[in-house]
Amino acid sequence: MALSVEKTSSGREYKVKDLSQADFGRLEIELAEVEMPGLMACRAEFGPSQPFKGARISGSLHMTIQTAVLIETLTALGAEVRWCSCNIFSTQDHAAAAIARDSAAVFAWKGETLEEYWWCTERCLDWGVGGGPDLIVDDGGDATLLIHEGVKAEEEFEKTGKVPDPESTDNAEFKIVLTIIRDGLKADPSKYRKMKERLVGVSEETTTGVKRLYQMQETGSLLFPAINVNDSVTKSKFDNLYGCRHSLPDGLMRATDVMIAGKVAVVCGYGDVGKGCAAALKQAGARVIVTEIDPICALQALMEGLQVLTLEDVVSEADIFVTTTGNKDIIMVDHMRKMKNNAIVCNIGHFDNEIDMLGLETYPGVKRITIKPQTDRWVFPETNTGIIILAEGRLMNLGCATGHPSFVMSCSFTNQVIAQLELWKEKNTGKYEKKVYVLPKHLDEKVAALHLGKLGARLTKLTKSQADYISVPVEGPYKPAHYRY
Amino acid sequence: MALSVEKTSSGREYKVKDLSQADFGRLEIELAEVEMPGLMACRAEFGPSQPFKGARISGSLHMTIQTAVLIETLTALGAEVRWCSCNIFSTQDHAAAAIARDSAAVFAWKGETLEEYWWCTERCLDWGVGGGPDLIVDDGGDATLLIHEGVKAEEEFEKTGKVPDPESTDNAEFKIVLTIIRDGLKADPSKYRKMKERLVGVSEETTTGVKRLYQMQETGSLLFPAINVNDSVTKSKFDNLYGCRHSLPDGLMRATDVMIAGKVAVVCGYGDVGKGCAAALKQAGARVIVTEIDPICALQALMEGLQVLTLEDVVSEADIFVTTTGNKDIIMVDHMRKMKNNAIVCNIGHFDNEIDMLGLETYPGVKRITIKPQTDRWVFPETNTGIIILAEGRLMNLGCATGHPSFVMSCSFTNQVIAQLELWKEKNTGKYEKKVYVLPKHLDEKVAALHLGKLGARLTKLTKSQADYISVPVEGPYKPAHYRY
Amino acid sequence: MALSVEKTSSGREYKVKDLSQADFGRLEIELAEVEMPGLMACRAEFGPSQPFKGARISGSLHMTIQTAVLIETLTALGAEVRWCSCNIFSTQDHAAAAIARDSAAVFAWKGETLEEYWWCTERCLDWGVGGGPDLIVDDGGDATLLIHEGVKAEEEFEKTGKVPDPESTDNAEFKIVLTIIRDGLKADPSKYRKMKERLVGVSEETTTGVKRLYQMQETGSLLFPAINVNDSVTKSKFDNLYGCRHSLPDGLMRATDVMIAGKVAVVCGYGDVGKGCAAALKQAGARVIVTEIDPICALQALMEGLQVLTLEDVVSEADIFVTTTGNKDIIMVDHMRKMKNNAIVCNIGHFDNEIDMLGLETYPGVKRITIKPQTDRWVFPETNTGIIILAEGRLMNLGCATGHPSFVMSCSFTNQVIAQLELWKEKNTGKYEKKVYVLPKHLDEKVAALHLGKLGARLTKLTKSQADYISVPVEGPYKPAHYRY
Amino acid sequence: MALSVEKTSSGREYKVKDLSQADFGRLEIELAEVEMPGLMACRAEFGPSQPFKGARISGSLHMTIQTAVLIETLTALGAEVRWCSCNIFSTQDHAAAAIARDSAAVFAWKGETLEEYWWCTERCLDWGVGGGPDLIVDDGGDATLLIHEGVKAEEEFEKTGKVPDPESTDNAEFKIVLTIIRDGLKADPSKYRKMKERLVGVSEETTTGVKRLYQMQETGSLLFPAINVNDSVTKSKFDNLYGCRHSLPDGLMRATDVMIAGKVAVVCGYGDVGKGCAAALKQAGARVIVTEIDPICALQALMEGLQVLTLEDVVSEADIFVTTTGNKDIIMVDHMRKMKNNAIVCNIGHFDNEIDMLGLETYPGVKRITIKPQTDRWVFPETNTGIIILAEGRLMNLGCATGHPSFVMSCSFTNQVIAQLELWKEKNTGKYEKKVYVLPKHLDEKVAALHLGKLGARLTKLTKSQADYISVPVEGPYKPAHYRY
Repeated sequence: MALSVEKTSSGREYKVKDLSQADFGRLEIELAEVEMPGLMACRAEFGPSQPFKGARISGSLHMTIQTAVLIETLTALGAEVRWCSCNIFSTQDHAAAAIARDSAAVFAWKGETLEEYWWCTERCLDWGVGGGPDLIVDDGGDATLLIHEGVKAEEEFEKTGKVPDPESTDNAEFKIVLTIIRDGLKADPSKYRKMKERLVGVSEETTTGVKRLYQMQETGSLLFPAINVNDSVTKSKFDNLYGCRHSLPDGLMRATDVMIAGKVAVVCGYGDVGKGCAAALKQAGARVIVTEIDPICALQALMEGLQVLTLEDVVSEADIFVTTTGNKDIIMVDHMRKMKNNAIVCNIGHFDNEIDMLGLETYPGVKRITIKPQTDRWVFPETNTGIIILAEGRLMNLGCATGHPSFVMSCSFTNQVIAQLELWKEKNTGKYEKKVYVLPKHLDEKVAALHLGKLGARLTKLTKSQADYISVPVEGPYKPAHYRY
Repeated sequence: MALSVEKTSSGREYKVKDLSQADFGRLEIELAEVEMPGLMACRAEFGPSQPFKGARISGSLHMTIQTAVLIETLTALGAEVRWCSCNIFSTQDHAAAAIARDSAAVFAWKGETLEEYWWCTERCLDWGVGGGPDLIVDDGGDATLLIHEGVKAEEEFEKTGKVPDPESTDNAEFKIVLTIIRDGLKADPSKYRKMKERLVGVSEETTTGVKRLYQMQETGSLLFPAINVNDSVTKSKFDNLYGCRHSLPDGLMRATDVMIAGKVAVVCGYGDVGKGCAAALKQAGARVIVTEIDPICALQALMEGLQVLTLEDVVSEADIFVTTTGNKDIIMVDHMRKMKNNAIVCNIGHFDNEIDMLGLETYPGVKRITIKPQTDRWVFPETNTGIIILAEGRLMNLGCATGHPSFVMSCSFTNQVIAQLELWKEKNTGKYEKKVYVLPKHLDEKVAALHLGKLGARLTKLTKSQADYISVPVEGPYKPAHYRY
Repeated sequence: MALSVEKTSSGREYKVKDLSQADFGRLEIELAEVEMPGLMACRAEFGPSQPFKGARISGSLHMTIQTAVLIETLTALGAEVRWCSCNIFSTQDHAAAAIARDSAAVFAWKGETLEEYWWCTERCLDWGVGGGPDLIVDDGGDATLLIHEGVKAEEEFEKTGKVPDPESTDNAEFKIVLTIIRDGLKADPSKYRKMKERLVGVSEETTTGVKRLYQMQETGSLLFPAINVNDSVTKSKFDNLYGCRHSLPDGLMRATDVMIAGKVAVVCGYGDVGKGCAAALKQAGARVIVTEIDPICALQALMEGLQVLTLEDVVSEADIFVTTTGNKDIIMVDHMRKMKNNAIVCNIGHFDNEIDMLGLETYPGVKRITIKPQTDRWVFPETNTGIIILAEGRLMNLGCATGHPSFVMSCSFTNQVIAQLELWKEKNTGKYEKKVYVLPKHLDEKVAALHLGKLGARLTKLTKSQADYISVPVEGPYKPAHYRY
Repeated sequence: MALSVEKTSSGREYKVKDLSQADFGRLEIELAEVEMPGLMACRAEFGPSQPFKGARISGSLHMTIQTAVLIETLTALGAEVRWCSCNIFSTQDHAAAAIARDSAAVFAWKGETLEEYWWCTERCLDWGVGGGPDLIVDDGGDATLLIHEGVKAEEEFEKTGKVPDPESTDNAEFKIVLTIIRDGLKADPSKYRKMKERLVGVSEETTTGVKRLYQMQETGSLLFPAINVNDSVTKSKFDNLYGCRHSLPDGLMRATDVMIAGKVAVVCGYGDVGKGCAAALKQAGARVIVTEIDPICALQALMEGLQVLTLEDVVSEADIFVTTTGNKDIIMVDHMRKMKNNAIVCNIGHFDNEIDMLGLETYPGVKRITIKPQTDRWVFPETNTGIIILAEGRLMNLGCATGHPSFVMSCSFTNQVIAQLELWKEKNTGKYEKKVYVLPKHLDEKVAALHLGKLGARLTKLTKSQADYISVPVEGPYKPAHYRY
């Protein structure tokens, strides 16, 4: 691997697949802008005052067309931006090209190796002289992880002279993280600590990244304030649910053209993502079976007419398997061996460890036939039957299709913009400690409100007397914090 | 009104419509038991140890077949019980008869006047010598209200000698409450304060009652601990949502036999109840329009393909109107005047003030034609067209049909049993102050788990390694408190 | 059985449950008129010319509120009408009372014995001096059957002197038919032949009755022209499908209050009726399994996400069983013995022989517990578990609820009116031979058109050039005869 | 245009985009085989007897992966095959490559010009010495049209010496047809008549092609027997309905990534195709409005909760427009001018004349911006707002996605195989005259039966007594010809 940063004529750094796709990317960005009223409203409201003037924002988040609109909203508000993707398959190369050419430093392409992926992450965080970013937009927490691991290694090195040992872990990806940090230590033994000093905070996009943040908060190891964007209602109850309802069948169709009607589909996990997936599959005419650990979610599935069983119960009769759990080791190679010929196995949870890809790859005599990129048929030697794995076990909606559509991402990303604005505005006030925060409900409601006009909706207004009767302000917020929507 | 308490041969007090319906009630109670696995599991688990031995429980909650199974679960656990309904139309007379004959003191019948209603509530709270109940099961908060108003009046009387003045309020129902308290003051000027002293706590069933409790908590006027059962996930996300999805069309069909397919239906409010109603109407083939004040709920409706408009936008073209807001003054007589001939207007929110019944009744020249009990056609003199009001504006699913089905009520009522057990167990420990509490998540999950077997579901079990990965115990609880399901 | 015909003050014959319910019936008829735009449009279009002047119409069709509007449309067009129900449980007594008092001779009440049922049928056909009706409206074909069997017996008697022997059949109901005919032979050995002579034709409502007519047409035994109303698109694709989608859950709810969500429901047969039932159950949250003999219908079920299995596969795990086949011997007592406790078994096909009621009633030691009329729990002695049978195995939507709603019946009945008009208009032209006919497509389209305005629909109009391009007249009909909709 | 036929090493003629895609095509064909049980069953049942031995089959039908499995089924049964696509955008180039290399002569690529399209059609029909094909598989009727127009021209030329004049028509495409025929006349003035002589018959796939055939039958101009495959139940009620339910959202997503939830979608036409489209859009969360000329179909839409309006009523408020009518001039440029910015306009009916592309292209000042192939934004000069046209107004599911999925096409194509077998078997018996026929119901049921096993279904078997009761053979067919499913 010998990667090198390129520069635009204006001197902006980048590394993308093909800068000549920038025009195509620009056209799709313009279409997306029409579908992203929340972001465009932010540009209109905040653009004139340039609130991000002087702020450096690094983002690690799927480099798609929708993200391009987010990035250009941040720059429209005055920020300087560097970006990388948070998944090796999720970049849309024309989006990356347009942003690299026009707006921000981008390091991302579809089909990175893991080494390339972490190289990109490093580049994204590296603002040259003066250290790192002021703010991070994170998705899954990899940028945050790198800084935390870097700081930990630097402190250990300072104390004991020991450098991280990539061989200390079995995890192939973590080996790479340790290697990068080890190599960095030699060049600058306080690089990550300087980053940490500068950092005002991070806003995190997903369930998975948020889980990591709360774990760090609990152990007291969180190094800077974090805003949990995922748990804004207008994020998790929209992006996770309606986004996946849209993009799961999209990914299935683009990857396999399979007829969903009539099939038996197993959805592992019935959280917001699983609910969206199950709804999509049911509506398309599949018979859906859910696996769950949580009795409440299981009972919800039953109320919707879905069967709740264990994976073992149905592994040999189902046609489509989707993992949505956020947990690991959901579909193991031993399950896959028992599946029907050409059963489709895919993951729409954040990380690829829901499906036992390692077990599959190392299965004796297994044969991989690549139908097309992100669609592989794996044939077991005993039976000579195969299963079809999408996106190598990674996020199939981003690997095989284009991820969530613009409109729902506008909800998510408007939360991101608001979270970044909030962190930056309060950078010197001490309002945010090294803890995890959610946005206040009135901002959550504002995000929703910005998306109603596009869909032709008209809200009812409370009278003062009605507002008093239910003890809320006329202009909201309307619900208690614990309300579940 | 000259009501008198009757007694069974065993000396139990009651006032019901017709004790001879007890056999019919018993048959339906037996059917319901098969559909209420959570309550039956409580009997099996807790019955032997008789945890309610010595406890007096008063309940103000729709006296239906399902409630009968709840009452007999409480008595099976050792409690003595007195009961009234919390709605003048919601009693099922055969259920009341069976309970009165076999299990508990009941004061309830379908079609009470408001005076009779409050007389029943008083009887329910009156345990004779020694004062009131130890525990209250409340629905909508009327029992809790009566005690709080009673205490307030007694304190005022003690201080100033002033008695409550029914003429001080315009609200017809509150006049009655004040009258009762005033009359009671003469007989015993410390009756409600004695009640308060004895009371260990209340568990409250509904959104509406809970709202009242939080208001009292905020002003510091809450007189005893309260458990908010409504906000157990296994209550609000099941009973409110799936219960209404079932019982709204049931009520519409029994009351009017109207074909729902092809009609335009307006659902005012898109909370859990509204979501259930809208889903039911959409599935039955109606075109559904939602009115909302909250932009988040509005955006949810849009994502489901529902139109969001104001009532004014659609008042003259819709066929069916349902209020679900928990607020007041939603459909006013001025709206009703503009409706199509035979438009159906009904309410499934807790209180009847969502529909302007007073405005309708006092509209000059309006004519009421009772088709059958709970189904009235009101004809406006100008147009000679009429609208159809169900259950006189009160809960139409209980007034026109039989309320929610047993299975979903088993979820709600298992929460009630658990809440009552908790209050009683901790009565002397100081664990519960004069505040509002929700049940801990592991109990919520337990309620769900008790309902899975009946529906043939099989849960997946976490491995230790998976549980550690997501930082939860193997046996749950599985979700953070803020999780929205 | 000693039944006697009663007379109104105006001399009209009737036999109903309670004439005092006429006012209540009238109120509901008036509501129904608003929901039956097709029938009301017939009154407006044809009423002035009194096309049925002088015609005697006998109807054997569920005596409901909707049928009342049909009857009064026939009388509004000049006909004299006599009516009976075609099912022992389907009469709505208040509808029968209103019609008996105001409009036509009615012989029908809810809960007839089979003897009473056939007595009513006889009365309905008996116009006194001058013999029988000019026209018959039939549902299931019982009126037509009686005349055909009567004529057969008379001819046999004339030839051989032999009278029908009720003991010649095992079928309990057919014994009664033969008895009636035998007894009638003595009084008038040419009664049914005289009827046949006068009869201009019959219009038949249902799949079942139509099947009988085609069988008679094939064997050449059909005695008069018949119009197959069932196979008008605006009948079978509406009444059978959307009517059952409405009235199946209505019947289930009124009879048992069972929660449908989460249950496993088996629908036997996936024709129009089965499709409506399956859709309703799925939408209400049940998991639906279909049984089918026809591979095409089976494949349709699969495309909708329904499982297709045999009854034997699922008999012991399902909660709700619905027969919709039009065939016999679908659920036998041997199936019922294997069902879960309190499994619900019901039929929505025309005849009650889909469920093996005889087998159940004669099962050794079986115990019947009547929860309420039309809802019986049958307990098997071996297991002491019971199943719940609705409407004694007869049409559960009419036995336990009020049948299909007015709007969809308006489609069906407008076809009836048009069919009757057609038969009567052509009575002397020879247009109709002793065969079975369907209405021409332009009349079918007209029926649909009459129902659009009520639902606010606006049709698009073809230009001449477009009409030519697809080779249809601008004003329709728009589809070839074989089009399936 | 200078196109030339190429040859494989084995001498087979072809013209495709890129023969090197054959391996990729082969992999997808192998996947599709698993999803096409009907075709594979035909290979197993008929392959050994080689019934098509000696038969030449020409096919004009979208050259997709699914069609490849059809072609190889025909060759597996002994036929020689030549193929072209029936739409300029519908070819999948890898499918064409695989077939060209391995199985049959193919003339098709994605993105043909109209001249190229008709050149391909000619090549497909040209079997060299000995004239044309024995059998035609047609889709939309273009191959049939060319022969009919050719014969007409030859007869005219023989009689009068006149050759076809391309300038005699305004229709750009028909000009090309006439040019081809004119040019052919010079080379061989009896080419099409020789074709006609040899031709045993055609089996036609679509509603549109069938309509043409019936028109020719009516005017007596049909030159050979035709089997209407479209109206097999297992074709029109599956492919048209469930196929479009799948492929419409697939095409929308691939072309535009637009979020369907929350949008207003207009479906023009509510036949089988429209029903599938409307169902898909509704399920994805759109609010669907239908336009219809036929009151019956309109009433069906209403019963499903869809609004029925005219295009004019909603043209300026909808987000997505889909034409499905089979008629012409549905969405005119005057409509398009009034649409919202970025409204999506597409067609899924057979021909591209549903959308006024000519009007759009010639609109003064209009600007076309190609986002990517098959996705164009057209900007109107007055408003500077644009609309998005998919697939240049042609079949969007084939132009923007990959058409219907394999499983449903297996139903359609198994009908094709059976039709072709039937025509060939009866070629000398006179069974088929120059008329249009549908396949008998027992074959239709057989096609369905062949697809049940794959989906795990188990059929119920009639007893003899049940079969007699409903007057059908135990083994079917089970329904009368007029049954609508």
